[in-house]
Amino acid sequence: MSSFKGNALRGTFFLIFGLGWSVKYPLKYLSRKLNADNQARKNMICICLYCLGMLAEQFVPDGPHMGLYSGGTYSWEKLTNWQYTTMYLFYGLSGIVDVLSYSPLKLSLGLDRLLLSVAMFTEGFLFCFHDYNNTALDQHLHSLLLIAIFGGALCALMEVFLRDHTILEFFRTSFFILQGSWFWQIGFVLSPPWGGPGWDQTDRGNFNFLTMCFFWHYAAALLVTAANSVFSYWYVVGQGNNFGALKNAF
Amino acid sequence: MSSFKGNALRGTFFLIFGLGWSVKYPLKYLSRKLNADNQARKNMICICLYCLGMLAEQFVPDGPHMGLYSGGTYSWEKLTNWQYTTMYLFYGLSGIVDVLSYSPLKLSLGLDRLLLSVAMFTEGFLFCFHDYNNTALDQHLHSLLLIAIFGGALCALMEVFLRDHTILEFFRTSFFILQGSWFWQIGFVLSPPWGGPGWDQTDRGNFNFLTMCFFWHYAAALLVTAANSVFSYWYVVGQGNNFGALKNAF
Amino acid sequence: MSSFKGNALRGTFFLIFGLGWSVKYPLKYLSRKLNADNQARKNMICICLYCLGMLAEQFVPDGPHMGLYSGGTYSWEKLTNWQYTTMYLFYGLSGIVDVLSYSPLKLSLGLDRLLLSVAMFTEGFLFCFHDYNNTALDQHLHSLLLIAIFGGALCALMEVFLRDHTILEFFRTSFFILQGSWFWQIGFVLSPPWGGPGWDQTDRGNFNFLTMCFFWHYAAALLVTAANSVFSYWYVVGQGNNFGALKNAF
Amino acid sequence: MSSFKGNALRGTFFLIFGLGWSVKYPLKYLSRKLNADNQARKNMICICLYCLGMLAEQFVPDGPHMGLYSGGTYSWEKLTNWQYTTMYLFYGLSGIVDVLSYSPLKLSLGLDRLLLSVAMFTEGFLFCFHDYNNTALDQHLHSLLLIAIFGGALCALMEVFLRDHTILEFFRTSFFILQGSWFWQIGFVLSPPWGGPGWDQTDRGNFNFLTMCFFWHYAAALLVTAANSVFSYWYVVGQGNNFGALKNAF
Repeated sequence: MSSFKGNALRGTFFLIFGLGWSVKYPLKYLSRKLNADNQARKNMICICLYCLGMLAEQFVPDGPHMGLYSGGTYSWEKLTNWQYTTMYLFYGLSGIVDVLSYSPLKLSLGLDRLLLSVAMFTEGFLFCFHDYNNTALDQHLHSLLLIAIFGGALCALMEVFLRDHTILEFFRTSFFILQGSWFWQIGFVLSPPWGGPGWDQTDRGNFNFLTMCFFWHYAAALLVTAANSVFSYWYVVGQGNNFGALKNAF
Repeated sequence: MSSFKGNALRGTFFLIFGLGWSVKYPLKYLSRKLNADNQARKNMICICLYCLGMLAEQFVPDGPHMGLYSGGTYSWEKLTNWQYTTMYLFYGLSGIVDVLSYSPLKLSLGLDRLLLSVAMFTEGFLFCFHDYNNTALDQHLHSLLLIAIFGGALCALMEVFLRDHTILEFFRTSFFILQGSWFWQIGFVLSPPWGGPGWDQTDRGNFNFLTMCFFWHYAAALLVTAANSVFSYWYVVGQGNNFGALKNAF
Repeated sequence: MSSFKGNALRGTFFLIFGLGWSVKYPLKYLSRKLNADNQARKNMICICLYCLGMLAEQFVPDGPHMGLYSGGTYSWEKLTNWQYTTMYLFYGLSGIVDVLSYSPLKLSLGLDRLLLSVAMFTEGFLFCFHDYNNTALDQHLHSLLLIAIFGGALCALMEVFLRDHTILEFFRTSFFILQGSWFWQIGFVLSPPWGGPGWDQTDRGNFNFLTMCFFWHYAAALLVTAANSVFSYWYVVGQGNNFGALKNAF
Repeated sequence: MSSFKGNALRGTFFLIFGLGWSVKYPLKYLSRKLNADNQARKNMICICLYCLGMLAEQFVPDGPHMGLYSGGTYSWEKLTNWQYTTMYLFYGLSGIVDVLSYSPLKLSLGLDRLLLSVAMFTEGFLFCFHDYNNTALDQHLHSLLLIAIFGGALCALMEVFLRDHTILEFFRTSFFILQGSWFWQIGFVLSPPWGGPGWDQTDRGNFNFLTMCFFWHYAAALLVTAANSVFSYWYVVGQGNNFGALKNAF
């Protein structure tokens, strides 16, 4: 599933989280207190999302179906799918700790952010050490992605020590939206959904254009995050009477 | 506009900001309070500067005139100009947030510094991933520039957490002046205004000299920043009576 | 001793520390106060472990037996063993400072963590600058190890400033367990104990699989650390009466 | 002066500072207050040392004698000497700020440490971008040196924010001693004082040995710093009556 559908799935996954956070965090500061029970229930849904991601990577028609080593050809099978499964596994671990942090277990404050940071660093190092088989454009696209991944990972790491810091949450949210939209872009560049080959891997102009394009995506991600903050503010302040309903929604 | 004029324009742009800050910050600490309305109006001028920068990159005679892809030759057009346009765009975003931070919108404190940091990191990564077409001296000059850019970006990032820290502001100001004067140097080295080819791209002596030269620029930038601080101090303390006029000027 | 036994010894060494810490730190927070005399005595045992490590690297049958330069062949002898001896030497220094920090000498608080950090950075840089003789898989395995080493070193460095931070101790413990289990993995991959050659150094599938495998080790290390914390909690809370005995054990 | 004498001079320079600090900082904490006038006078001596360094690099028999460009051969002259002159220049600037920080000028606290950090980063980047003309061992020796330089630079940078932190001062002192002794080692390896060629630049064993050797130097530097601290403690506590004389000496 290194095709368009795989990248679209990953992009959607990160966009859901990024856009969800871009509404959740402003509301948190406006209402000062979110319903903890409700929150834990929402986090259970996140874990389901991670599990779905893992299952999708494994059991799509051209996936590995849990087979890792082929005895016939003496070679590893579908390692790219396994790699994304590993990525979802770590996000899943971080999700479990997130749920437990609402339980009466009294986890150390900040452990949820640490695990999120570990998940993002894991994702980043998996892309770093990935073997791109001399497909230079592929490598370039994922190198740009690393900026978003490690940026987000450093934000989450700093949140371990500076908890509930609005700016860090804003920053991390924008990096998640960037990651999501860039996965879609990768899909369109490497394997367009309307068929045909991907972009020319040797044209240096493509490299320079995509570098710029990545930062346009980021400008858009910043605007979306800012717009959602403003929207949340307007919603809460302007329509205080139906705020109870909203608190349950996120 | 990768010629002398372009580099001179960029250099002037950064010098204006650096020199402006080198006077503004000492005054801030001496007077303890700057006129907020006035400040917002000054920031509007900054945004105009960014817009002018963008327009200049686009509409100079040999610029792209907003055209990005040439259907005739199936290739990207004037990507270097587009790249600098992107750079000005991010500085423009940071300028808008700067203006908004003086408005009654109650932005999170530090968001203006974060956006400045994002703008500088964007500029840095654009230079990192730029394709220098095997012109080693060009790449060397921009690698040195990266020290100033990422140095300034880290300063701005730390100011998000340590707001109004004199040392960080001093440091950031000196990096901006360095960037400005180095853009001028790049212009003189690669495309001298008196015509003729640039410096020899293969002479290793040029590389070693320019490395040293970069740090001489930095020594000069430090001295200029220090001199302006001393000058501001002398101006305020020695001529307290016309301080009101000065406060309006910056 | 770059064979299986050497890697197994190093792996066991790090596992002992990692697993020991994974029980010691939760107990510290549950009991609030560890017996200082007892602690110093335990640290003496650690120093013995480091000395044993050094002696093992030097005096195994194919070791250098303290000889560094061979006058006969005009060449350095068994540098890999000497390198690991250097590694144990720095861990030994950190152990000595650990013991002294319980003495009445009034060392600066945090010096023990700093020396631990120095030991880990030393280990990391020794692997960085090691010459792998074109054995790419060997280098890949040790590059992955560097993530665990430098991760742990940064944790220890931050503990100098943020002493007794639960999250940092948890993180550092998990990195030590990871290092231990990965040394075992390196042993199995490069020189399997059942004889025969190591894995194919040219198959790119091996590289991608081992990258993933490293992060599975880390997921396991996180689970082990978490399980030991839970176990310690259950032991202390459920069986408060025999807690005195436990305090002496660690 | 890239010969033995130059490296010995640089080594001695850093050793004087490192060993001086290794006695000064413990005394500072034992006596709580150093004579400010005296301190400024000591710092003047430091500036003289920097000037001597600059003059030595310029006016040794085979130095550039302030000539930078040779009109005859159309090439840069003696750039290595100029590079070290630049290094001493920045240490000189940091020395001047150090003196001024004892003056009634009310400099921002921490500016002296910032300038020291800038001087070390400058030194580091000068070595980074230096062209080693395919002499791999030369480059390897200076790469190792970078660990000491950037380590010290980061320490000084952190001291801007965490002033008078014993651990950071201890750490920085040890890095200066390491730098000093390593410059001597570089001299012995590349151009032995007893004549003859330097070590074999192609033998991989030399690379591995020197990597280890660097960390043995560091272990020695740590021991010397610790011993001087203990000696200072013993001197002050055991011989309190002649402490006044000592305070004037450092």
